[in-house]
Amino acid sequence: MVVRCFKAEEDRRPWHTLPLKHVIESQQFDKGSLDLIFRTAQEMEAVQRQTDAAHQLDGYIMSTLFYEPSTRTRLSFESAMARLGGTVLSTESAGQYSSAAKGETLEDTIRTVEGYSDCIVLRHFQAGSAKIAASVASVPVISAGDGPGQHPTQALLDVYTIKRELGRLDNLTVALVGDLANGRTARSLAYLLSMYAGVRLVFVAPHVVAMGDDIKAFLTARGVEWAEAEDLAEVAAEADVLYQTRIQKERFQDRPEDYERAQGKYIIDSATMQALPKSSVVMHPLPRVDEIRPEVDADPRAAYFRQAHNGLFIRMALLKLALVG
Amino acid sequence: MVVRCFKAEEDRRPWHTLPLKHVIESQQFDKGSLDLIFRTAQEMEAVQRQTDAAHQLDGYIMSTLFYEPSTRTRLSFESAMARLGGTVLSTESAGQYSSAAKGETLEDTIRTVEGYSDCIVLRHFQAGSAKIAASVASVPVISAGDGPGQHPTQALLDVYTIKRELGRLDNLTVALVGDLANGRTARSLAYLLSMYAGVRLVFVAPHVVAMGDDIKAFLTARGVEWAEAEDLAEVAAEADVLYQTRIQKERFQDRPEDYERAQGKYIIDSATMQALPKSSVVMHPLPRVDEIRPEVDADPRAAYFRQAHNGLFIRMALLKLALVG
Amino acid sequence: MVVRCFKAEEDRRPWHTLPLKHVIESQQFDKGSLDLIFRTAQEMEAVQRQTDAAHQLDGYIMSTLFYEPSTRTRLSFESAMARLGGTVLSTESAGQYSSAAKGETLEDTIRTVEGYSDCIVLRHFQAGSAKIAASVASVPVISAGDGPGQHPTQALLDVYTIKRELGRLDNLTVALVGDLANGRTARSLAYLLSMYAGVRLVFVAPHVVAMGDDIKAFLTARGVEWAEAEDLAEVAAEADVLYQTRIQKERFQDRPEDYERAQGKYIIDSATMQALPKSSVVMHPLPRVDEIRPEVDADPRAAYFRQAHNGLFIRMALLKLALVG
Repeated sequence: MVVRCFKAEEDRRPWHTLPLKHVIESQQFDKGSLDLIFRTAQEMEAVQRQTDAAHQLDGYIMSTLFYEPSTRTRLSFESAMARLGGTVLSTESAGQYSSAAKGETLEDTIRTVEGYSDCIVLRHFQAGSAKIAASVASVPVISAGDGPGQHPTQALLDVYTIKRELGRLDNLTVALVGDLANGRTARSLAYLLSMYAGVRLVFVAPHVVAMGDDIKAFLTARGVEWAEAEDLAEVAAEADVLYQTRIQKERFQDRPEDYERAQGKYIIDSATMQALPKSSVVMHPLPRVDEIRPEVDADPRAAYFRQAHNGLFIRMALLKLALVG
Repeated sequence: MVVRCFKAEEDRRPWHTLPLKHVIESQQFDKGSLDLIFRTAQEMEAVQRQTDAAHQLDGYIMSTLFYEPSTRTRLSFESAMARLGGTVLSTESAGQYSSAAKGETLEDTIRTVEGYSDCIVLRHFQAGSAKIAASVASVPVISAGDGPGQHPTQALLDVYTIKRELGRLDNLTVALVGDLANGRTARSLAYLLSMYAGVRLVFVAPHVVAMGDDIKAFLTARGVEWAEAEDLAEVAAEADVLYQTRIQKERFQDRPEDYERAQGKYIIDSATMQALPKSSVVMHPLPRVDEIRPEVDADPRAAYFRQAHNGLFIRMALLKLALVG
Repeated sequence: MVVRCFKAEEDRRPWHTLPLKHVIESQQFDKGSLDLIFRTAQEMEAVQRQTDAAHQLDGYIMSTLFYEPSTRTRLSFESAMARLGGTVLSTESAGQYSSAAKGETLEDTIRTVEGYSDCIVLRHFQAGSAKIAASVASVPVISAGDGPGQHPTQALLDVYTIKRELGRLDNLTVALVGDLANGRTARSLAYLLSMYAGVRLVFVAPHVVAMGDDIKAFLTARGVEWAEAEDLAEVAAEADVLYQTRIQKERFQDRPEDYERAQGKYIIDSATMQALPKSSVVMHPLPRVDEIRPEVDADPRAAYFRQAHNGLFIRMALLKLALVG
């Protein structure tokens, strides 16, 4: 199955200058295309209501096809479309309601829905489904996460946030904390950061949810320095980015004790913040439960809500690039 | 927890001339602010499609965050926003789908969603949640009901309807009928009407769902005349407003017999209408089951569908006041 | 119950030149009104983004009130409204969420929702409900299917597709295949085609889901030639239109064996396509399961996705005719 994530791939222009088509996985981006997306996202931050810029997607229709509910991600995409003047057709729970329940294939659904909209934002519970959708769609397909697979717009907004907060993507020590086995975000972030020079990754995870060997092997092959550590305060002391993730209770259904042990192990609280350098930031893909204590929220280094808001600008940028270039 | 329902509360201007911020509870309004809202609602009745007035909220985005489904209230808010040119991001069932299911606090959800929209309409199953939301939000929060707590826009549209139907809010006999224990609307209405001179309230309720002592004490303290009565026809004969409410079956789950007895006790039918004065009106917050017989619908004094439509104008007014002043 | 599907029915103008009001059932259309709808649909195919034509319904609001979920049909209507500049208020699952759960009648719901929108698209699980809704509504009601009853916009888009694909509606052999007992679409199509000269219908169905005697009697009375057949390839060889339908598993809940037998009996595959004349087309209301093999999709005579897209133009036409004439 060949999926063209950029149009006209036979074109001689460098990859990252080609018009974006689908957004499917972190691997489709190189430094050049990231740079284009980030510059566009920064333009998007400046879009003012009732100006021409706020009407760039007038008359365009986006369908959000969510087979797995995710209110946060859906609203972020829908807001992005609305901020540029576009219209949204929304499906909160396609799995339950759509023709899927009658046995229709995803391919058939996409072939129908592409007749109603100019792009499709797809959230699915099965890894690989975004790629399947893109392989039949004549309109851009933007993945909003496909189960245990990829969540490329989250990865993009994470990297964008580091750049916005710290001003650079090179020469960084990034500590990834929490559920590194199941969390797509930590894995995707590791992938994207591997493109930048002087990046050092430190993994701080309970044993039951340690970072997978595949990512470690990948980093080693790419010459990226990485380490595993157990003492969160020690790691915090030398981190530029402390990226916390939620231990996903839903992954421990038969093992409540394991969950309890993993959940309470690495908590970011005021003690952690005291160890963290002044110029560093704390990030989290949200939602959080209590792996970052509320007392941290008022700290200017707590970047997680700004990070969530950056998702809006990244998605505005992707929609603009995919629909009008 | 301090919630500023009007902006710039240190301002020296009288309270009701200050710009509205949040809409949380009936108690935040005085006669002056009610007057402003009602005048604005009346302007809203005159908004014509495809005129400048119909574009006052162009480029503004409203999120409807409904943790408890309520199609009627949601559509009313969404229509209000649309009639003024605004855009809606909709969540029909946030409780089931959103990050709440993963353990996220309401505060965190609000801090995220405020990045996607210019105001948030919140429906929640827990009393006090609108206040919690408003305490962290940088954008206006408008409560669309918080469980057994308040439903301020319903209270506003009820009072507005009385004013539109009868031309005044002073010197009225208002009979509240049905479930006065659980119905938020009857309680809120009693509260708001207590601000007007010469208002007399008569409570007609089955014993199991009688009006609470707190409201009675409040009315007595405010010097508002009130009474309890058992004979609906007798009460109707001297009422300016006959405000019927539904006996909420969902509150009687273990006591079906109590429900049956309460449900059938006070029904408005043509006999009631014959007792009711010509210049009076029948109101109901809807939905009704059969506590008002369909035969009453064609009577010009049956104001309940007009009342529902007034909800649109009240919500247009609140959105305008909160977003553009 | 009298439902006026066209405005001013006492008007002396021929029926099909009167402005459309409600869309309730196939029987409300004659050849003249079909012609008007099809001409308008063809205009709709030419509507370009950001032109005046794309703003014909600016400021109009459509509510989609779906008591039975149907993502495909809902998105098609919502896209149609958006393509003409209108706004959509959406309810994906009114049965579960709305006041219906509290015992409200459909009539009351309609009387409320008509205050929020300029037209109502209703999908309901009960036959006859569209008619009930239209009988109380002051705004146009467009049926998006009422249970085992009618699905008039599907019937219209089917006939429109035949006209677009073959250039005519007269002198056609149309083979209806699959579940002809439960499928509304086959029945409605038979009804509408009976208006045209020289149409011949052939029914190819497993015994358990054969075409109903009422339709056969109706066709005989109208002088329309019809036949039943068992050999799909033989039928295909003389068909202008091969209209396949899905065997609806949900109708065979207690009889899984009957389902299996019926399901596998008439499959369209490359062998069928070899028998089918070059100028013929294969249609399907979708979703399909595997009654048309994926290998058929690339054949230019496979019209079913074009058929789905035609639904957009038919619905744009109906909304335009009902709202602005």
